[in-house]
Amino acid sequence: MPSETASRHSEPLPADSVGIVAPRSHTFSEPLRLACGRSLGDYTLVYETYGELNADKSNAVLICHALSGHHHAAGYHRAEDRRPGWWDQYIGPGKPIDTDKFFVVSLNNLGGCHGSTGPASTNPQSGLPWGPDFPPLRVRDWVHSQARLADLLGIEQWAAVVGGSLGGMQAMRWALEYPQRLRHAVVIASAMKLSAQNIAFNETARQAITSDPDFCGGRYLEEGKLPRRGLAVARMIGHITYLSDDGLGKKFGRELRSGTFRQGVEEQVEFQVQSYLRHQGDTFSASFDPNTYILMTRALDYFDLAREYGDDPVAAFSHAKCKFLLVSFTSDWRFAPERSREIAAALMHANVPVSYAEIDSPMGHDAFLLPNERYRRVFAAYMDSVAAEVTGRGAKP
Amino acid sequence: MPSETASRHSEPLPADSVGIVAPRSHTFSEPLRLACGRSLGDYTLVYETYGELNADKSNAVLICHALSGHHHAAGYHRAEDRRPGWWDQYIGPGKPIDTDKFFVVSLNNLGGCHGSTGPASTNPQSGLPWGPDFPPLRVRDWVHSQARLADLLGIEQWAAVVGGSLGGMQAMRWALEYPQRLRHAVVIASAMKLSAQNIAFNETARQAITSDPDFCGGRYLEEGKLPRRGLAVARMIGHITYLSDDGLGKKFGRELRSGTFRQGVEEQVEFQVQSYLRHQGDTFSASFDPNTYILMTRALDYFDLAREYGDDPVAAFSHAKCKFLLVSFTSDWRFAPERSREIAAALMHANVPVSYAEIDSPMGHDAFLLPNERYRRVFAAYMDSVAAEVTGRGAKP
Repeated sequence: MPSETASRHSEPLPADSVGIVAPRSHTFSEPLRLACGRSLGDYTLVYETYGELNADKSNAVLICHALSGHHHAAGYHRAEDRRPGWWDQYIGPGKPIDTDKFFVVSLNNLGGCHGSTGPASTNPQSGLPWGPDFPPLRVRDWVHSQARLADLLGIEQWAAVVGGSLGGMQAMRWALEYPQRLRHAVVIASAMKLSAQNIAFNETARQAITSDPDFCGGRYLEEGKLPRRGLAVARMIGHITYLSDDGLGKKFGRELRSGTFRQGVEEQVEFQVQSYLRHQGDTFSASFDPNTYILMTRALDYFDLAREYGDDPVAAFSHAKCKFLLVSFTSDWRFAPERSREIAAALMHANVPVSYAEIDSPMGHDAFLLPNERYRRVFAAYMDSVAAEVTGRGAKP
Repeated sequence: MPSETASRHSEPLPADSVGIVAPRSHTFSEPLRLACGRSLGDYTLVYETYGELNADKSNAVLICHALSGHHHAAGYHRAEDRRPGWWDQYIGPGKPIDTDKFFVVSLNNLGGCHGSTGPASTNPQSGLPWGPDFPPLRVRDWVHSQARLADLLGIEQWAAVVGGSLGGMQAMRWALEYPQRLRHAVVIASAMKLSAQNIAFNETARQAITSDPDFCGGRYLEEGKLPRRGLAVARMIGHITYLSDDGLGKKFGRELRSGTFRQGVEEQVEFQVQSYLRHQGDTFSASFDPNTYILMTRALDYFDLAREYGDDPVAAFSHAKCKFLLVSFTSDWRFAPERSREIAAALMHANVPVSYAEIDSPMGHDAFLLPNERYRRVFAAYMDSVAAEVTGRGAKP
């Protein structure tokens, strides 16, 4: 398995990469009022930017990350890095989110564990890690904090707010909370709310974490412990649901990593898919904060776009002023195409301009991160039209 | 939630119940040679029977249980029991497996934890619980041990071997291992082998158990411990996959059990589906042996009907002499209808008589245990034809 720290052997960076990037951070001192009723005082957001902000600051694109994402969406932190940011496939010069045209902003959300203030940060009241005392967050809290970041960068209006999965929920919430502050929302593999099955998987993942004795009621950092095993199981559960049955079958089938199928040999068979999943779980649990995982999955579960609009998505979207691109993937059973079709129908009934593409892919929910020619073309064509509005120039010839 | 021990308040038993039943058990002394190469010396099988064996012993039906099943398939152990056996819906007088016509045998499989010899039993070599030293079992081992039970009961040939899920795998294996010893195989919601996704879910469940510190490498009984938390998470994972997305949605939607959706109230929302799942996990982990869960899921993963027949299901089924009924359920995504269609196609190519019914149901894999009128009718009609062969009488008017 490639490791993030393994060397790229001094190969030159790919020509369509944004190159070496450095995260920045800013600490906001005006308290942020949260949906839960509490306020968060000083808080830090870490973010990266790619491309150049134009003179009238009209070419900014906000990237909203999903459950386990972070600010490092494109490029490399060091020339030696073997793997680029998580959405490098779609962000860079000549790529759908074209950094020759757009100024791209990608942050680690509040409550995260990659530099922004979150449960692993120090609670100024106690001098100890926040842990379980960190306030519960809702998608709207992220949107409000992202608006502060926009203010900081002098961006009055985003050309587009873009996200997949939980990131798509943020893009939709932007359209309702700050209708004047974005011209386009790109909502990929997302939903207006989770199904009971989605919630059930999230609950099981949280249960795996909180039932690990090293969780210590969420105060594992104070106790010098870490519920790695529970978090690994949580990640394994999540990971299976991000892939499709067919995709897993094509990738692993029933291939063996060890053991034998021969009768009369007492040996435990280990399937490839088992060791793959264990690797995924172990890698993740070495680098992600368990309380953040709980916080993020709760924000997902709680998200319900139309709840405060009388449970009427049409009424909700009638507040939107932007245009929408929706994308879904045929084999995505966690955020199935049907969920995107519901969004499209509500937007159309609310007279909001919407383009919708259902992409053939065997890769399940993960497809939104992976190479796919039709997805790339649809995404690029839409973003080209966004760029054309910004610059007054037509799409690339 | 109804409890197994809650009283039925002295209501009379339902008229279509087999009534009060008592498990029996037998200890076999001739060692059983296992697929792993080892032999199991003295071992006990616990079983129940319903109905009467006819004079020529031609009306016997074997019930094979699934992952978490056991011998108590129908009736009540005590008049006070609130819930009958796990397949009481389909076994009893006038029911599809009609105990007025059939002599029904239902056992707890070897390796189980409801009375048959398994990992929680005492290892005669050490005087301690077998634990992780219990030999790994394959579906064929169960079939061989079931054949011994048939011998004990004087049953040369089953009228039918019947099972759902893992039980259906046993019915198929019976048809290949002992082609002369069954006239019908009824294979419900099953598959010739698991998909990579199935294996992945099982692996995650096992990981939840084995990573619980109270698992103690499988020697928790010796240590006076029990990995309840890990087993609860394992059960939650399994449970979600036995239900359909739609079924969960219809049953729970996004209903709350506690908390509030109101903004400005810091309270953790708990969805109904969360408490339901936790209850399922806790109840199960109080009554099931973790090593048995591991053993059973490994038998599931390892099962591959046609592996030793050159991976050719047609070649495999060409050894079968019985007739087949296959049933699948539209919303079952763990053992999807496609898997049953594969079995049907292989049987047809092997010139084995097969009937196949795909039943509309929103209940997912669990549908095979639940009331469903079309399922009942199909199942009853087929079993009536089996009974007609036995007794020489026609199906019920």
